[in-house]
Amino acid sequence: MPAPELDRLIQTLARLPGLGPRSARRAVLQMIAKRQTLMEPLIAALASVSQTLTECRICGNIDTADPCAQCADPRRDASLLCVVEGVADLWALDRSSLFGGRYHVLGGRLSALDGVRPEDLRIEGLLARVACGDVREVILALNATLEGQTTAHYLAEQLAAYPVKVTQLAHGMPVGGELDYLDEGTLAQALKARRPLA
Amino acid sequence: MPAPELDRLIQTLARLPGLGPRSARRAVLQMIAKRQTLMEPLIAALASVSQTLTECRICGNIDTADPCAQCADPRRDASLLCVVEGVADLWALDRSSLFGGRYHVLGGRLSALDGVRPEDLRIEGLLARVACGDVREVILALNATLEGQTTAHYLAEQLAAYPVKVTQLAHGMPVGGELDYLDEGTLAQALKARRPLA
Repeated sequence: MPAPELDRLIQTLARLPGLGPRSARRAVLQMIAKRQTLMEPLIAALASVSQTLTECRICGNIDTADPCAQCADPRRDASLLCVVEGVADLWALDRSSLFGGRYHVLGGRLSALDGVRPEDLRIEGLLARVACGDVREVILALNATLEGQTTAHYLAEQLAAYPVKVTQLAHGMPVGGELDYLDEGTLAQALKARRPLA
Repeated sequence: MPAPELDRLIQTLARLPGLGPRSARRAVLQMIAKRQTLMEPLIAALASVSQTLTECRICGNIDTADPCAQCADPRRDASLLCVVEGVADLWALDRSSLFGGRYHVLGGRLSALDGVRPEDLRIEGLLARVACGDVREVILALNATLEGQTTAHYLAEQLAAYPVKVTQLAHGMPVGGELDYLDEGTLAQALKARRPLA
């Protein structure tokens, strides 16, 4: 059996998503073998994140500054607001560098099953940002799941009271997708939203 | 993009075996969400391991004490010595609680491809332990791979000079294995080592 300290580290690592007891053991052995180049840097990175991490009070993003880098960036178009469920979605959009506006992180999606109600999400903050009048268009970039779409419809209703354009991401065939492998829901959406060839 | 501190943590985590950039991102988000119950315990566990970890000078095991818990345990039979490639193998055997003797961790296996020579492994220490005369049997519990078996044969040659019994783990069908799915090598070994029904 590993020493108690090692065992505690393995148990804790095994609680991370994507790692089980077996891969946690392998990870610990790797860290032991590469103490200077892996374990020490990991300790330093964790400590620095733990000390500097904060939530942006404007958009709900996780960053080391408040307001976050995205909210503080003057080159970003303040009239375009993209609403996402979580920080991971913000990162995904940001990696693509396709969107030049601002973000708003809801912190989840409405779910009767999980007991997530509108007041549990950052919806008031969103409406407050829209009420300020700078925002011209709100893009609802929620997941194409039942709960994501329910949330999108709820938000669209709330936003109807304001003079903003409300849009959502297009649904359809993913690029590289094959018709034969598409689920019926996607196929239906792609057919419904068919466009004339340019 | 995540903040530089977060990005550094993601990059470092992604270097652990079993984690890629995507799962490292998910792990970091999980840690952010569970700061008190996951991130802080992980930092504490890592720091305590990093501070207390040491290599046993007798067997090469990784532990917080030197000699390690296994070498210091008087209930373990000092006349039985089990040779394993790595610490993970020692842990695996120890989890099964089937072996009541002592261990010796080689720290790898001979490999012409990776340039691992006998002097890179803890072989001198093994011979020194055998030379002391307490050891009656050396069990070579090396992996059933080409390199593991090459190492086993090399060790058997070296140990021939000492008055000890040298054995190795049995090869054959794994328990629960189905004939139809066995590779030829295993099948050949199982056939060669067939035993009369008790």
